[in-house]
Amino acid sequence: MNLLQKNYCFAGEQRTYEMSSVYLQGIAKFSVYIPPQAEKEKCPAIFFLAGLTSNEETFAIKAHAQNMASQLGLILVMPDTSPRGESVADDEAWDIGQGAGFYINTQQMPWKTHFQMESYIVEELYAQLIKNFPIDARRIGIMGHSMGGHGALTLAWKYPNLFRSVSAFAPICAASECPWGEKVFSAYLGEDKDIWKNHDAVALVEKQGALFSDVLIDQGLADQFYSQLQPEKLKAVCEKKGQPLTLRFHDHYDHGYYFVQSFIDDHLKFHFNHLNA
Amino acid sequence: MNLLQKNYCFAGEQRTYEMSSVYLQGIAKFSVYIPPQAEKEKCPAIFFLAGLTSNEETFAIKAHAQNMASQLGLILVMPDTSPRGESVADDEAWDIGQGAGFYINTQQMPWKTHFQMESYIVEELYAQLIKNFPIDARRIGIMGHSMGGHGALTLAWKYPNLFRSVSAFAPICAASECPWGEKVFSAYLGEDKDIWKNHDAVALVEKQGALFSDVLIDQGLADQFYSQLQPEKLKAVCEKKGQPLTLRFHDHYDHGYYFVQSFIDDHLKFHFNHLNA
Repeated sequence: MNLLQKNYCFAGEQRTYEMSSVYLQGIAKFSVYIPPQAEKEKCPAIFFLAGLTSNEETFAIKAHAQNMASQLGLILVMPDTSPRGESVADDEAWDIGQGAGFYINTQQMPWKTHFQMESYIVEELYAQLIKNFPIDARRIGIMGHSMGGHGALTLAWKYPNLFRSVSAFAPICAASECPWGEKVFSAYLGEDKDIWKNHDAVALVEKQGALFSDVLIDQGLADQFYSQLQPEKLKAVCEKKGQPLTLRFHDHYDHGYYFVQSFIDDHLKFHFNHLNA
Repeated sequence: MNLLQKNYCFAGEQRTYEMSSVYLQGIAKFSVYIPPQAEKEKCPAIFFLAGLTSNEETFAIKAHAQNMASQLGLILVMPDTSPRGESVADDEAWDIGQGAGFYINTQQMPWKTHFQMESYIVEELYAQLIKNFPIDARRIGIMGHSMGGHGALTLAWKYPNLFRSVSAFAPICAASECPWGEKVFSAYLGEDKDIWKNHDAVALVEKQGALFSDVLIDQGLADQFYSQLQPEKLKAVCEKKGQPLTLRFHDHYDHGYYFVQSFIDDHLKFHFNHLNA
């Protein structure tokens, strides 16, 4: 694990690292925000999974989370959204390939050599974080935006022992039933739609039932990608399964980080409260 | 004036415009944040001048100012840092030419055709803003970062009737006596150093004396460009002239926006308080 950059920020440090990943078969970058409280004690941590075309810097620069993380004593973990590099498969389209890992383990060529984001996040990166940073492993949450909201919800439902709180901004709620998901799942996983269901938040809630005392989701009503996201399906399955869900719709807000930053403090407080409950 | 983009943000709007500029001889972009209070009443406004290599988006994305601007009811104005375009003179170096306007009117070729940033800011852009937005013209402040801190201090001292409050992050305090300034002033203004003094904050305070009830400056002590900035010279001339100065030094902080965002709320409150005094 090599430190590439560090910048003092709100009496803590914003850092960028690279690590060698067995699952991704290459070098992976991630950012971490370390609040001042981490000098004295172990802190809760929140993984933030970013959306299509983003990388490990996007959330760090655009979400405006460090101020509240510093106040609450939260470590923020910001992985890249896919494997990267000249030897890594890619596509000219922005919604598949590099920058579009979808937080799953792919099964088809040319993707499966490097695109094993699910195992990278929940095994390699998770273990590196706990080993190298003052993180209280009993208090780790996960959140995400858009494709990363899909990642946060699906990984939370698959690994509830790893992530004790979950929230999302404008998540893709039913990846197996939207154009983005249908495109990448066909390429990454093949045509067996039963396999797709393992990477679909609505299907996972249907299968596993209620797992969290609450889930916070914010959704803008001027979101240009609204038809890809389908929060109504998540609301329906949560009601059916008795999973508490705080789903907030916001007039005028679109899909970008000017929306995310407007409500990021609420999400950080949500995780803080649930992780300390 | 054309609206290029708008994004709802903290119950207000972050917008990007382009306008045709006579002084810059071309199209100039700027960003504006409109807080929710502007729907009902005229608001104070703060011009934010960005540093080398920045453009009209940099401060909007990286400074994390919208949250507090929304709370206080401040309009934020974020111009580009120079004229732009294929027909505009440029240089391979990042510290001269496009992205490095230094907020002055240049006098030498090939620069003087387009590089008239001082007049663009204080005449054209200022007038456009007052004409088109609900700005209280008696309550306009100016702030900036690095080269933009130099711009904020020099324009405040040259146009105290336009800007009633001034602050800066890591400003170039004596542009005529540092490597960055010596390089660009030679190219932009020629070798007569008496002319340079008209664009040097320390020299302007020396010449004009005390003009503001206070000036807020934050400076990181891990700033990689510290030797270009010379806050001690500003402190000395302010003491000599009886100009109140709140100059805060901060251990560990460097020159970038992770530093700026850590103290931006203090600056916005400073302007709010002085503009409403």
